[in-house]
Amino acid sequence: MKILLKTLALCVMAGSMVAQAEPLVIQEQGSFSAGGTVITAAGTFDAKKPLEPAGQTYHGDHASVFYQIPENPHTYPIVMLHGAGQSSRTWQTTPDGREGFQNIFLRRGFSTYVVDQPRRGAAGRSTVDATLTAKADEQLWFNQFRVGVWPDYFKDVQFSHDKAALNQYFRQMTPNTGPFDLNVISDAMSAVVDKSGPAILFTHSQGGGPGWYTAIKNDKVKAIVAFEPGSGFVFPQAEMPAPMPSAFDTLKGEPVPMEQFMALTKIPVLIIYGDNIPDKPVAMPAQDSWRVRLAMAREWRDVVNKHGGDVTVTHLPEVGIKGNTHFPFSDLNNVQVADVVSQFLKEKKLE
Amino acid sequence: MKILLKTLALCVMAGSMVAQAEPLVIQEQGSFSAGGTVITAAGTFDAKKPLEPAGQTYHGDHASVFYQIPENPHTYPIVMLHGAGQSSRTWQTTPDGREGFQNIFLRRGFSTYVVDQPRRGAAGRSTVDATLTAKADEQLWFNQFRVGVWPDYFKDVQFSHDKAALNQYFRQMTPNTGPFDLNVISDAMSAVVDKSGPAILFTHSQGGGPGWYTAIKNDKVKAIVAFEPGSGFVFPQAEMPAPMPSAFDTLKGEPVPMEQFMALTKIPVLIIYGDNIPDKPVAMPAQDSWRVRLAMAREWRDVVNKHGGDVTVTHLPEVGIKGNTHFPFSDLNNVQVADVVSQFLKEKKLE
Repeated sequence: MKILLKTLALCVMAGSMVAQAEPLVIQEQGSFSAGGTVITAAGTFDAKKPLEPAGQTYHGDHASVFYQIPENPHTYPIVMLHGAGQSSRTWQTTPDGREGFQNIFLRRGFSTYVVDQPRRGAAGRSTVDATLTAKADEQLWFNQFRVGVWPDYFKDVQFSHDKAALNQYFRQMTPNTGPFDLNVISDAMSAVVDKSGPAILFTHSQGGGPGWYTAIKNDKVKAIVAFEPGSGFVFPQAEMPAPMPSAFDTLKGEPVPMEQFMALTKIPVLIIYGDNIPDKPVAMPAQDSWRVRLAMAREWRDVVNKHGGDVTVTHLPEVGIKGNTHFPFSDLNNVQVADVVSQFLKEKKLE
Repeated sequence: MKILLKTLALCVMAGSMVAQAEPLVIQEQGSFSAGGTVITAAGTFDAKKPLEPAGQTYHGDHASVFYQIPENPHTYPIVMLHGAGQSSRTWQTTPDGREGFQNIFLRRGFSTYVVDQPRRGAAGRSTVDATLTAKADEQLWFNQFRVGVWPDYFKDVQFSHDKAALNQYFRQMTPNTGPFDLNVISDAMSAVVDKSGPAILFTHSQGGGPGWYTAIKNDKVKAIVAFEPGSGFVFPQAEMPAPMPSAFDTLKGEPVPMEQFMALTKIPVLIIYGDNIPDKPVAMPAQDSWRVRLAMAREWRDVVNKHGGDVTVTHLPEVGIKGNTHFPFSDLNNVQVADVVSQFLKEKKLE
């Protein structure tokens, strides 16, 4: 009996190991740039004076994309746009070394397009100059991303306490190589979905704003899943929300013409926020900033839905999913979070 | 008979289509950072003043890596380091949309690790500040990378004349986000091969120098294939070559202690140069710069081999492979170039 149980345990272990080790079958993968602009310097190029800009060109402000198409993919690929200080790596391996949403959704049969937005990562050529400084700021991010209040982790936070995980987390940040420009980014993202074909758009944080504008600019965006959008909520001029002050900043809506706003009423939208967001004002800037962002998302949901839209705001603790940071898609329970997303995609017939 | 031939033609077509469309079977894939350093600002962090650097950290100068492990891989993975102004995208889709060396060598059974070196691409956090300017410079690169002499392509150049290909080519460039530092890069590359395990290193152009230093620093580098190394040739102090003047610059060797130099005699090295490199001085800087680089590579080969090394310099036109640019691994005939590399790896028992 003891041997039988041991054998059984080994089989279960072997089973879960096989499940983990199931290979990805990729029909096609590669990279490309999309969108962007070209600057041409006045004058005539002289091949003997190659360091003179005269007559030379400069291609910049494009997005850079790595895509993978699994065998027999679902109709719509998923295009994934990172947040502030991040790149396509946001969606890859988690800080503690597990699979991120790139692999998880490939395994669930979706083509994935992970993007570096214009002026970030591999899409570094910016048409506007920039100065980059090595400013120490990681305790700010630890707090702002709701891992905890430095040096303490939130109780039961879905983030590994392993030092190596924090090292990887900080090192996955990468700076702007030019000014953040919502219009430049949404233009390039629109070019990305022209290349991918009709797609589901995942956005994170600062990527939320460019995400709404991408859907306004291109009806190939068939749905949006926005993780913790931090700004850029667009409202019709006549229905602008009152500014929302917090201990961090004052959050405002952004006015757009009604016909632009209406584009957002035509597609299903899921907005997901994690845990440790207070519901009443608190003195800590990092927490209080998310209080007003969640409140703004709910106000936005109500206005879009009033105009016939289909926006859901899921505050994860309210559906029993606890401890999530600002990065629910790479938190320790990211498979559970992926299940929430999959359920949404299934309900909206996007699988 | 006509029908039989048609059927045969269809079968051949179907056969080649199937060959193209063969899926990649990936046992594991993901991303990580390797190496780097940490700066800590003096003082004590105050969570209420998160924009003050006091007491905060900054992780920078690491490499960023995307890796893929196929089913039943060869013993040694291939670590791929880009050249100046490039990123890991160098090894991915070619400018004209075909598979690059990442896919080609995955298909040939190698795990691949494509790297963004410190201060480039997704590894953007530099511990040293930088100013980035949108300087028009692409006709310089068109010439320097030996696509042609702008606006003319070299006759029979292995580069698509399609405008879209040139657009992608220019847009795959991405700037330094901090000063180029051979020591910082080779430190991070050494950390990459610690993570990958004993590996074959592919380098390109400016990556050549850091490649030699990586092998000096870490004996897990089991072989190097250097595509058109442009600088950083290391020699024993007593055997430094004479400086080599060209219409572009004066190329010099770099002195290293004998025991460091000797590390490069312990591993097989293949150096590959493409076409349109003159063998006598010419006035055009772009061409003349490569004349001295090829000459320096040959001198380096002779010195390493004199000390018991195993360096081969393959100038592709000399083995009948014509029209290659500075990017043989993404040129139109890159499968043929991959065959040259595979032959080398086979001979050196590295498959």
